[in-house]
Amino acid sequence: MRNINKLSEIKVIGFDADDTLWENEDIFLEAQNELKIILKNYVDDLDAELFKTEQHNLELYGYGIKGFILSVIETSIRISNGKLDVYGIEKILNLGKEMLSSPVTLIKGVRETLNLLSKQYTLVLITKGDLLDQENKIKKSKLSGYFESIEIVSEKNKQTYRNILKKVNVKPENFLMVGNSLKSDILPVLEIGGEGAYVPYKITWEHEKIDMKDYSNFLKLKNISNLTSVF
Amino acid sequence: MRNINKLSEIKVIGFDADDTLWENEDIFLEAQNELKIILKNYVDDLDAELFKTEQHNLELYGYGIKGFILSVIETSIRISNGKLDVYGIEKILNLGKEMLSSPVTLIKGVRETLNLLSKQYTLVLITKGDLLDQENKIKKSKLSGYFESIEIVSEKNKQTYRNILKKVNVKPENFLMVGNSLKSDILPVLEIGGEGAYVPYKITWEHEKIDMKDYSNFLKLKNISNLTSVF
Repeated sequence: MRNINKLSEIKVIGFDADDTLWENEDIFLEAQNELKIILKNYVDDLDAELFKTEQHNLELYGYGIKGFILSVIETSIRISNGKLDVYGIEKILNLGKEMLSSPVTLIKGVRETLNLLSKQYTLVLITKGDLLDQENKIKKSKLSGYFESIEIVSEKNKQTYRNILKKVNVKPENFLMVGNSLKSDILPVLEIGGEGAYVPYKITWEHEKIDMKDYSNFLKLKNISNLTSVF
Repeated sequence: MRNINKLSEIKVIGFDADDTLWENEDIFLEAQNELKIILKNYVDDLDAELFKTEQHNLELYGYGIKGFILSVIETSIRISNGKLDVYGIEKILNLGKEMLSSPVTLIKGVRETLNLLSKQYTLVLITKGDLLDQENKIKKSKLSGYFESIEIVSEKNKQTYRNILKKVNVKPENFLMVGNSLKSDILPVLEIGGEGAYVPYKITWEHEKIDMKDYSNFLKLKNISNLTSVF
């Protein structure tokens, strides 16, 4: 746990969205459970096969539900050796549309926390995924009023954060990023000299898992409401 | 043709990207030709059926290749009454990956025009589609250095342009938008009080076609190089 005194220098707070402000991984998990039913005759380890396809396609498809569904269709054809019929594919397409139409469920304490912090700090939302899908979720969340800037990006790396910090005109040492992914929300921000508050979600996507044993200089909070007590 | 004198007030020029700076509709047209081969036993009028699906899915999928491919798969299953086998679907997935990996071919005169105009005006790139795909195309185009700001948006309507003009700090009367779509690049900009330069491409996507008989107050240019002669 880092020295909390340093937090007095924070002026701008960045928030991840999926699984930080609202539930997201649940939608993918539910979809994967439904997929196991659609594909029950063809596969033992869907998750591992799907993850392999997703990693392979990431450079072309990026993050988000549309790329996920394309990878699911590809995996389904491969692992069923072509035995899955096209109506199985149709079910997968419909599953994708359900995912894209899901309501947004805010995580407990989010609105109150943003409301309090927005009175003293500039808040920025920084999220990755499909552009339209993220915009729709932001709209459904009714949280956009708390944020001075909303940044939908294709990847969260050091350069992404440098660009955003430049845009909102803040130095790294005055910036704190809050999120559930050590890999995307915390590590690159620490590496450019910013601060991180890691708020784990109950589920972490395989792709976002990393070993952080070399890093201890970030906050780890049990839930987002704890943010208001550290400031 | 509008009064060219008014153009002396222009300070910022916005450029559409697909089919304005580089070829794009060709990639979709080629893909549709390949699809007709894959689906030759099942359909007479693929284009019309596909357009119907695309329009229906636009609100969920937005613009871009990933949503296009999902709509193609949906259409193929529907119009073949389930007779297309999954290896046909696999071919469609591969077609999508080819589309996403296409090289970027600049339209003639683009680099010279941007080079000249960037010396006197602030240039902004405003494009819609998949976030990662558009970023990749911008990278491949090697044009990003000419633009002060690059805006990838989910839709080009009046509010989109108002937000961008606010962000780059320019009044509508000092802004000219250049693009190949009357519906997305010209009409909304005229409606908020800006100026438009319409540079038609050899192909226009059905979705972008509109009737502009009520509007005559915009420039119509034969090719992008003509921009330098009207200023």
